[in-house]
Amino acid sequence: MNILITAGGTTEKIDQVRAITNHSTGRLGKQIADAFSNNPEAIIDYVTTKNSVLPEPSDAIHLHMIESTHDLLTILETLLQAKTYDAIIHSMAVSDFTPSLSLSKEHFIESFGTNKVTETSFDNWLTQTKQADSNSVKKISSDTDQLVIVLEKTPKIISYLRDWQPTACIVGFKLLVDVSKEHLLKIAQQSLVKNQTDFILANDLTEISQEHHHGYLLAADGTIAEAFTKKEIADLIVANVQKNRGDD
Amino acid sequence: MNILITAGGTTEKIDQVRAITNHSTGRLGKQIADAFSNNPEAIIDYVTTKNSVLPEPSDAIHLHMIESTHDLLTILETLLQAKTYDAIIHSMAVSDFTPSLSLSKEHFIESFGTNKVTETSFDNWLTQTKQADSNSVKKISSDTDQLVIVLEKTPKIISYLRDWQPTACIVGFKLLVDVSKEHLLKIAQQSLVKNQTDFILANDLTEISQEHHHGYLLAADGTIAEAFTKKEIADLIVANVQKNRGDD
Repeated sequence: MNILITAGGTTEKIDQVRAITNHSTGRLGKQIADAFSNNPEAIIDYVTTKNSVLPEPSDAIHLHMIESTHDLLTILETLLQAKTYDAIIHSMAVSDFTPSLSLSKEHFIESFGTNKVTETSFDNWLTQTKQADSNSVKKISSDTDQLVIVLEKTPKIISYLRDWQPTACIVGFKLLVDVSKEHLLKIAQQSLVKNQTDFILANDLTEISQEHHHGYLLAADGTIAEAFTKKEIADLIVANVQKNRGDD
Repeated sequence: MNILITAGGTTEKIDQVRAITNHSTGRLGKQIADAFSNNPEAIIDYVTTKNSVLPEPSDAIHLHMIESTHDLLTILETLLQAKTYDAIIHSMAVSDFTPSLSLSKEHFIESFGTNKVTETSFDNWLTQTKQADSNSVKKISSDTDQLVIVLEKTPKIISYLRDWQPTACIVGFKLLVDVSKEHLLKIAQQSLVKNQTDFILANDLTEISQEHHHGYLLAADGTIAEAFTKKEIADLIVANVQKNRGDD
């Protein structure tokens, strides 16, 4: 059984010393890998990031270390096009945005020039300023009181998985912050349909701590299971993936 | 002998899941602490950040874990006002900027309104929009193609140290990226004078790797020593601090 797990959080460079990070310890991904490792037939590709907790070492686990969303897309494209997976557990916290342009307030004001702020003037300004700045990726000077950073959307990794692996059991994750149960489940259900996953693990940052981790596992068949610790979530995912495979 | 060491890199939150981090492994700070630990009289307060390499455990080392530049200022204010230190080695990579405002491109354009971009309109816009947004520090929605983040300068921690500790031997750090030796030494010398430190360790990111770490230790008396590994830099700093104390 070929399993692909992503875990940890991506880092998007602003310059050579600063970066935007998505906080994730990778502990849930580790628990999922450890739970799958109980199955002697499981062979796991584990894609993760620096500073993440790693699964127990095992000959059946192959680690792939990446940094940015772009790196993640590249490694997944390679792995998913080379091999057929039984299951993909995409638990990594992926940056939605990556820095596109960073400049001092003074440079921002000067480069925006005499234009009023409209969608057109903003887009034109961004294109031109990015071109002019494309050679300067050194550490941004701190000789200014304010910096302006423009970030642009990264590719939605989860939306590619089904195209690459039509038959895999895919488990996506949806993390929201301080929302109602109804809203969380609604958004998770939308993600499940849109990305054609088999399951979505829905969780709320305010219900995650070292000890506890409240989550709902939504299945494509409409059932919803609940878990209260990382271990319970990991066991729930592994049991459901194995059941899903057995049903094929 | 009371020693204070800062090491690692600060993290500035953008929202509850994203942050701007200053990359630093903390390995040089660890080496400096380990080198001081050879002196049985050394008692070390070690201020560091999550994900940093830690010094060898010892009863003489007291760990203080912090996250942001603001946290660093708070803990240093407490420690430096409570106790007299013989030496302060400030090797932590501190964020020069912290997020002040984050908003979607659409919100940016709408809130900037019909104004042309000038220093006055920018400052007014920032003040007003920050006030309006001060209640919303949740995860930023990803329903936009671009985000605009404004960052503002953090307090310059190194500039406070001498006021708090008039007699300590203070070692500051200056990291630049891909500059000439002359420029690096000039900027380091300016920092030494401006912040009234006894030493500045000047280094260039392009000359730092797992194996090597090229640095210059500038002293207030004008002498400059050179080192090529973290171990050499640590030993150089410890030897110079102890000599400086012995000279008093």
